[in-house]
Amino acid sequence: MSTYRIKSRIWIENENHVLLGQGRVHLLKAIIREGSLSKAAKAENMSYKKAWDLINSVNNAAKETVVTKTIGGKKGGGTIVTPYGKKLIEIFDTINKNCWDFLDGQLSQLDI
Amino acid sequence: MSTYRIKSRIWIENENHVLLGQGRVHLLKAIIREGSLSKAAKAENMSYKKAWDLINSVNNAAKETVVTKTIGGKKGGGTIVTPYGKKLIEIFDTINKNCWDFLDGQLSQLDI
Repeated sequence: MSTYRIKSRIWIENENHVLLGQGRVHLLKAIIREGSLSKAAKAENMSYKKAWDLINSVNNAAKETVVTKTIGGKKGGGTIVTPYGKKLIEIFDTINKNCWDFLDGQLSQLDI
Repeated sequence: MSTYRIKSRIWIENENHVLLGQGRVHLLKAIIREGSLSKAAKAENMSYKKAWDLINSVNNAAKETVVTKTIGGKKGGGTIVTPYGKKLIEIFDTINKNCWDFLDGQLSQLDI
């Protein structure tokens, strides 16, 4: 049994612009959990500006809006991840997992 | 047809030490081509120390020697990549290519 392991990092691009990688997915999940970009940034130990830039970059690269601001309402404004954004997160996680399984399989066939 | 593309980077670890990634494979190929570590480092725009550290790290993580020094002989000393090292490079390139194909396939099944 080989002690070698293959690791991978994947990311999704749209026309050469990065759309989603592990860090962005993590931030989006924090937004879903926290309900606001500022709380999500804090939870991720990230400046608000850095978080905002990342989210802006996600929205610009995506074919549909991933993150929107809600204004006013009983609980005041917040930040939400759209259903399209949630679908992208799910796709990313699934493909990432599939990729790890695929790579484990590749290595297990080898005698090194 | 989606304009989204999935990119990936893979690397091989042995007991939590990085063995091979794209940069190391590139350097090993330069050693094979150039016949010496110093020429390979120059070709890769890398300091000799940096190249030496990387190669040292490869040898330490691998189960068998990947790079050796040859001493003396008609052409003076040089640096060679062992047959085991060449096998690892081939495996890395193959799995990397397989991974890209796999990820293309994953995305093509999706409607996003």
